[in-house]
Amino acid sequence: MDALKKRILTEGKNLGRGILKVDGFINHQVDPELMNACGRELARRFAHARATKVLTAEISGIAPAFCTALALGVPIVYARKNRPITMPDQVYLTLAPSHTKGLNVELIVSPEYLGSGERVLIIDDFLATGQTILGLARLAKAAGAALVGIGVVIEKTFEGGRAVLQPLDLPVEALAVVTDMTDGKIVFAD
Amino acid sequence: MDALKKRILTEGKNLGRGILKVDGFINHQVDPELMNACGRELARRFAHARATKVLTAEISGIAPAFCTALALGVPIVYARKNRPITMPDQVYLTLAPSHTKGLNVELIVSPEYLGSGERVLIIDDFLATGQTILGLARLAKAAGAALVGIGVVIEKTFEGGRAVLQPLDLPVEALAVVTDMTDGKIVFAD
Repeated sequence: MDALKKRILTEGKNLGRGILKVDGFINHQVDPELMNACGRELARRFAHARATKVLTAEISGIAPAFCTALALGVPIVYARKNRPITMPDQVYLTLAPSHTKGLNVELIVSPEYLGSGERVLIIDDFLATGQTILGLARLAKAAGAALVGIGVVIEKTFEGGRAVLQPLDLPVEALAVVTDMTDGKIVFAD
Repeated sequence: MDALKKRILTEGKNLGRGILKVDGFINHQVDPELMNACGRELARRFAHARATKVLTAEISGIAPAFCTALALGVPIVYARKNRPITMPDQVYLTLAPSHTKGLNVELIVSPEYLGSGERVLIIDDFLATGQTILGLARLAKAAGAALVGIGVVIEKTFEGGRAVLQPLDLPVEALAVVTDMTDGKIVFAD
């Protein structure tokens, strides 16, 4: 994904303390063409995983997960952080520590849309500490679904998320792998 | 949009008190094909508006707004309900009363991604009381941007939103117009 890396280098901002600002094309303003290209690439990498559903967490996971699901031709479910009034009383809920917010956030999925027999591909914008993705994996397991893979737009290796996800024993794909953000740099793995 | 109306009739649920549950294909689980068709249709209806940006509110506005922006070939900005740490201190912020939550929610946009010279098309999943869309319109005006139209997937006419938006003097398009939900019914305008 050279287009993505180029964009990160030209428009991304290293705010220090490992914070990579990509609000101009992923997180607040979204470039739909770029995001669709990311979704197609993630779908290509997981084409043989036979996913029946894409699972993500609101809010910033929605765009890349949607594009991946569109390319795969399967539904996307986004875990809610607040239970809407349309959701049944009995739900799957897990707590995931938020690195950037410094507190636990709830991740909630209705059993109506996640169940046994599903083959779940988890997609998110970032793989950093891995805690959100680990929370999504717990929800899928609680629902009795099979996990088939994890795909992210950007991985920050120095936050250790890949090691956290290791026990899940799943293929993990990242379209841009950032290995170093010290001293204002943005360094990719390749 | 017959496919949308058919889907609302077969999978939508009238929960009473005007609440239309479409969590199975729009609001929690999303059908990417259907949503993409909605986006293309909204883009077609506003093709002559020469929008340079699509504006929506997180969370459930993101999927239809993304698809509309993809079809139009312009960026999408989603107003945040919490200020992320990547956002500058000086932002556009407005309060919008949330009908379903019974309180005011903040809608926040960074001046980096909304400014004068933009031609803004507002897209959301629902037009109900119109308060969220009115809030988005205030943000666009505060930024000095021109508003060119309002498009929604589903309008519930009995909540009066269209009259609320009247002073904006903008074209309003809805792909499915629900006129009556009394006694468990879901009645469309045509």
